[in-house]
Amino acid sequence: MLDIKVQKTTAPKQKPAADDPLKFGTIYTDHMFLMDFNSEKGWHDARIVPYGDIMLSPAAVVLHYGQEMFEGLKAYKGPDGTPLLFRPGKNVERSHMTAERLCIPPVPEDVFLTALKELIKIDADWIPDAPATSLYVRPFMFGTDAKLGVDVSDSYLFVIILSPSGPYYPEGLNPIKIWTEDQYVRSIKGGLGHTKAGANYAASMKAQQEAHANGYSQVLWLDGATHSVIEEVGSMNIFFKIGGKVITRDLDGSILPGVTRDSVIALCKDWGVPVVEGSLTIEEVYEASQNGTLEEVFGTGTAAVISPVGELRWGDKNIVIGGGEIGEFTQKLYDTLTGIQLGMLPDPHGWVIKVE
Amino acid sequence: MLDIKVQKTTAPKQKPAADDPLKFGTIYTDHMFLMDFNSEKGWHDARIVPYGDIMLSPAAVVLHYGQEMFEGLKAYKGPDGTPLLFRPGKNVERSHMTAERLCIPPVPEDVFLTALKELIKIDADWIPDAPATSLYVRPFMFGTDAKLGVDVSDSYLFVIILSPSGPYYPEGLNPIKIWTEDQYVRSIKGGLGHTKAGANYAASMKAQQEAHANGYSQVLWLDGATHSVIEEVGSMNIFFKIGGKVITRDLDGSILPGVTRDSVIALCKDWGVPVVEGSLTIEEVYEASQNGTLEEVFGTGTAAVISPVGELRWGDKNIVIGGGEIGEFTQKLYDTLTGIQLGMLPDPHGWVIKVE
Repeated sequence: MLDIKVQKTTAPKQKPAADDPLKFGTIYTDHMFLMDFNSEKGWHDARIVPYGDIMLSPAAVVLHYGQEMFEGLKAYKGPDGTPLLFRPGKNVERSHMTAERLCIPPVPEDVFLTALKELIKIDADWIPDAPATSLYVRPFMFGTDAKLGVDVSDSYLFVIILSPSGPYYPEGLNPIKIWTEDQYVRSIKGGLGHTKAGANYAASMKAQQEAHANGYSQVLWLDGATHSVIEEVGSMNIFFKIGGKVITRDLDGSILPGVTRDSVIALCKDWGVPVVEGSLTIEEVYEASQNGTLEEVFGTGTAAVISPVGELRWGDKNIVIGGGEIGEFTQKLYDTLTGIQLGMLPDPHGWVIKVE
Repeated sequence: MLDIKVQKTTAPKQKPAADDPLKFGTIYTDHMFLMDFNSEKGWHDARIVPYGDIMLSPAAVVLHYGQEMFEGLKAYKGPDGTPLLFRPGKNVERSHMTAERLCIPPVPEDVFLTALKELIKIDADWIPDAPATSLYVRPFMFGTDAKLGVDVSDSYLFVIILSPSGPYYPEGLNPIKIWTEDQYVRSIKGGLGHTKAGANYAASMKAQQEAHANGYSQVLWLDGATHSVIEEVGSMNIFFKIGGKVITRDLDGSILPGVTRDSVIALCKDWGVPVVEGSLTIEEVYEASQNGTLEEVFGTGTAAVISPVGELRWGDKNIVIGGGEIGEFTQKLYDTLTGIQLGMLPDPHGWVIKVE
């Protein structure tokens, strides 16, 4: 059993008002979880302390060689007020895969889950309950050794912070516009694309900035070798409903194994909707838009849950989907997933965990 | 003219003894340079302060999304005791290229160079002068915004730290053994491979760890698409001398434009040695080793300067170069470059800058 030292804040912050139109990930709760790793003691000194700055050596590995990873999940307030988590075990599982690729020592599942729950319990009053809000939970870890030779760190810090958050996109459930990137590459098989490494996001910023400048919310990434196969969106996996089938990239080593992606595939199977995990090219999507079989497009991710895509820009072509309106299937997925997450709908897969 | 506030330490540290067999990048001088960026003021508040920890928000972009970059150069003590820098303008030039790719605001050349010189002057007594030692100079910058949405930071910190250092490899000038990586990928055109982004090194650690476990010092990276074309070594560019020609990868967007690489190419041209910048496959290197035309292999980098390669492991094949001994051409390059860097040899290209 994890022994967590708790030091509560003596200066609680003002919580956002109930009608605050919360942004995503900009305000933080009163406390954070910290735990250290070194090669002698392993993971040790688990503690919950007042939220505040971290002291780092200027030579810390994380500041030079990007040895850093994160996870993201959400806590909701259930119908009886109990905090709910959605499939946190999947985040822990993915963190182990990321940690292995980045040579970071994994945090054991029971330790990880206990840390999450204890921190959320202490700051449970910060979980917002307006529609489309949640408490975003951000576990992350990074190398802290002070050494300049390129090398795996021997010491690490594991941190969890919490942020009461509104929708990831200012558009909310209004369809977003996505820019297909044909110059920059996010990842390739053999790289870090399948992990939640900070490095992937560093590589993505330039394309995202250019997409924004052109009026698009996100970037659609194509594979690095052929610039043709659709991989994922900047902060989401992506699904295409074409001719009655739901198609998304298979987990071949270059895309993130999203928890929401996995949940959507499970719901499709529950509903008897055919799902294909494989390779779909941007050319095929364009063709489907021309011959009328492109029905719906949506992104999936913890932060945005389900995000309808209304327009896909590819070179000089504008692919408008469903007249720019949210599709019926996308809406059903959103309603079902958020209903389960909020504890309002039956949970046949046992996805929701009560934090008590 | 850059106005730098200077706060000198009141508790100077003990310097390493003159005969200390210094490691690379593990001890730091008494001072560091700091400068902040925000969108209102641009780069501002340049200051030299006692070396010490940095305070960061736990939500800082650098800890989650790897928006970080660095440079590396060396200061030597010249024959008259004046500190010398080797081509610092090339580092500034490369930092601008990296900054552009990572959406980090560039530090203007005059500001960058002034900061370097002023810090080195203050800690000039820390420059070691035993053979193969130098003061390693590490400028770096990273995003400091406290926000969890994936986005370019609006605020940054630019830091320079100094580390009296010995040879990068414990082997010194003894030839190192290199492991050819055929599973993991460092970068691909369109990615960050040509930049000094922390992200590249995060991606490289797993392969480096496996190479170490197998008794090899470094990893030789092949291109991400075909796993055949030789790109670079973990912390160096790489050159092959085959049949009288010196061959290295061209700057096609996936390898780092090394300052030492550039200097070696210039020296080859000075000497009338044919240089080819292009694509060389690992298969061609193996063939050359079999038909007796593979003469020498060496890595080039600021940290290691010139590093002879004595053995290349590729799958189940062991390519031994020059009987595992340093080659004549490699030795000549090392002697010439370090001679110029130390101010002991003529400097026809004007590479050496006095810090006075």
